Amino acid sequence: MKKTIIPQGTVTSPKGFVASGFHAGIKKNKLDTALILSTSPAVAGATFTRNTAKAWPVLWSKKAVQHRTHRAIFGTSGNANCFNGDGGREAVRRCVKFLSAKLGIAEDEVLIAQTGIIGRAFPTAKVLKGIPPLIETLAPDGGHRAAQGILTTDRQTKEIAVSFTIEGKEVRIGGCAKGAGMLNPNMATMLCFITTDAAIGKAVLRQALKEAVDDTFNQICIDNDMSTNDTVFILANGQAGNPKILTKGSGYKIFVSQLKRVCRTIAKGLVKDGEGVNRVAEIKVTGARNSREAKIIARQIGQSMLFKTMLAGGDPNWGRVVAAVGSTKFPFDPKRLDVSFEGVKVLNHGRVHQEQVPALRKKLQRKQVDVAVNLNLGRGEARFLTCDLTQAYVRINAWLTT
Amino acid sequence: MKKTIIPQGTVTSPKGFVASGFHAGIKKNKLDTALILSTSPAVAGATFTRNTAKAWPVLWSKKAVQHRTHRAIFGTSGNANCFNGDGGREAVRRCVKFLSAKLGIAEDEVLIAQTGIIGRAFPTAKVLKGIPPLIETLAPDGGHRAAQGILTTDRQTKEIAVSFTIEGKEVRIGGCAKGAGMLNPNMATMLCFITTDAAIGKAVLRQALKEAVDDTFNQICIDNDMSTNDTVFILANGQAGNPKILTKGSGYKIFVSQLKRVCRTIAKGLVKDGEGVNRVAEIKVTGARNSREAKIIARQIGQSMLFKTMLAGGDPNWGRVVAAVGSTKFPFDPKRLDVSFEGVKVLNHGRVHQEQVPALRKKLQRKQVDVAVNLNLGRGEARFLTCDLTQAYVRINAWLTT
Repeated sequence: MKKTIIPQGTVTSPKGFVASGFHAGIKKNKLDTALILSTSPAVAGATFTRNTAKAWPVLWSKKAVQHRTHRAIFGTSGNANCFNGDGGREAVRRCVKFLSAKLGIAEDEVLIAQTGIIGRAFPTAKVLKGIPPLIETLAPDGGHRAAQGILTTDRQTKEIAVSFTIEGKEVRIGGCAKGAGMLNPNMATMLCFITTDAAIGKAVLRQALKEAVDDTFNQICIDNDMSTNDTVFILANGQAGNPKILTKGSGYKIFVSQLKRVCRTIAKGLVKDGEGVNRVAEIKVTGARNSREAKIIARQIGQSMLFKTMLAGGDPNWGRVVAAVGSTKFPFDPKRLDVSFEGVKVLNHGRVHQEQVPALRKKLQRKQVDVAVNLNLGRGEARFLTCDLTQAYVRINAWLTT
Repeated sequence: MKKTIIPQGTVTSPKGFVASGFHAGIKKNKLDTALILSTSPAVAGATFTRNTAKAWPVLWSKKAVQHRTHRAIFGTSGNANCFNGDGGREAVRRCVKFLSAKLGIAEDEVLIAQTGIIGRAFPTAKVLKGIPPLIETLAPDGGHRAAQGILTTDRQTKEIAVSFTIEGKEVRIGGCAKGAGMLNPNMATMLCFITTDAAIGKAVLRQALKEAVDDTFNQICIDNDMSTNDTVFILANGQAGNPKILTKGSGYKIFVSQLKRVCRTIAKGLVKDGEGVNRVAEIKVTGARNSREAKIIARQIGQSMLFKTMLAGGDPNWGRVVAAVGSTKFPFDPKRLDVSFEGVKVLNHGRVHQEQVPALRKKLQRKQVDVAVNLNLGRGEARFLTCDLTQAYVRINAWLTT
């Protein structure tokens, strides 16, 4: 079985997907709308923000995703279409209606995700005018433009596509995302659109997406806020022609591992491209009593402001790691605890190796660093990806206005 | 009933308390030990960090506070005596033993709290040598020196004493604290020592302390980390001669309201003196379904990094407030939500008053600002005190080493 990353892969790398991006005028000079279309009916999965303040596109898509088949993902950037009154709901309704009419598909086959400023009236007329050119420019090489159409403060697009085989058939998964960076008064949002030509049942696809998101997007952070618009969509159109995946057998295992690979690559890209980010840390927790506790411990470390500022300074301050472990309230044994930075143990079964600190200071100047914590209590493991908290982050979020 | 704040009040303002501070040599040039003694047996209450990585003094005091009476509070700064092996436990044991012998009191009558760097061997010999001079200099005007003895990165001491009457008798409460600012590689710690000459039963005193701490110290934040050493002690020696408070009657109500006043004043001082803090915000949540939800919502807003950076920039970005409310997962009705800054509504039953924003930008340049959120759902209310997240905070925590 060959597993490769497709060079310059995009959401249109899998068979039967076309896409486009267009400047409709929500933002000043950049692409601000994106359309991804499957040339044949696909099944969809989705995960959404758990923020109870949900944007209008989230409310629409949560309902629409229950439909049996889907054909299109529509994305816009520059206006979150959130907390802007009934006009926002109407904006979604009109966009969906117009798209479905123009594309000749059911309204519920259109999924929609939006990102940008909260609380502003949505420029519906402008966006409606942008839909015909979006449709006219749909193309098999339009994936990159679609990826550009959903960016806000991102420095670059986050895109990847992979190729692998299931029972002799080549299957592809492609994805693009916009970042979770925050910009005043823009809200944090993570949008991710995934396409695949795998033949897979809807129930199993949703399960695969949940597994992949739990291990990747749910294990990263830039700051401690949760957006009103976070959305991940996946469309699977079956055009790869593999025997349809309907159970959690070997085909499913291959598919989910490749889906995780796509999500993990994108997640890493999101953290690296976070606002004001200079350094990324991958935290690995092992030896927890179970994987649930490992996940919570890894997240607690990754979200600690003291840990994140320590990372900015490149200081191997293991005391902050220990304090973060302790603040989860799970029992742990100080005499069994190991803490390593870049593979070097500063705490070994509770014994401090302060002599390692000077050399570690240099290693922690790297752009990406590994932090490992072993509780030596059980077999629970988890990873978490985080970034440093820098003065640039504060400057961007405190002082810039759009 | 007269209620006054005592000018230059300290922990020795209540009757029957003496105190001292001394430079034992844990730190370079500053006072680093403190002793507070009640001249007669007192009853004690305490609250401790919930971090499962607990410092040795916390482990000692949690046990000792179960004793029927207490006489002394011993505090040290510069070394957290945490995560430093069995030597740390031994350090506590030896200090307590020596203090109890010198003072002629039971070992369990000594409460101890320490703050400073984690993971370093404790300089027990130095501190033991400091105990005789500490005892020799105990004085009725020694409260301020004791307050100085527990400081770490604080810019100033946090002290207050109040006077009030219970059934015709003057009762006093005094308190001092060190701040929750963080300094690399020092850990965050909040220590607070409270003294009172009220006659009050131990069970009722503990209840009063819990009530006061829940409403004050548990409703503030500087960052999102929890220390290994956080401790609040209260000693009540009964020398005011008021009829002993044994139930939650009128005497209790007066006492607890004054205790809250002391704790609130100190809590505000802690936030104002937090590292890198330029601006303080008091968040008031009303109209929640109940007070528990109100507390959680207020805390969620106050701990949001986006809210805290917004505060640094002085920007009335109500969208971040709404997103924080939503991220608590409690249901709320966007059409009923009010959000005000400095008494000016920018969101009124879900309607945006964007025209208020320019004037509000000026008001939010003040050193202390009020933020009010009314969910208009019920009668739950809560307050939370927070500070801005500034570039100075990041600089201090990322780049300074001690």
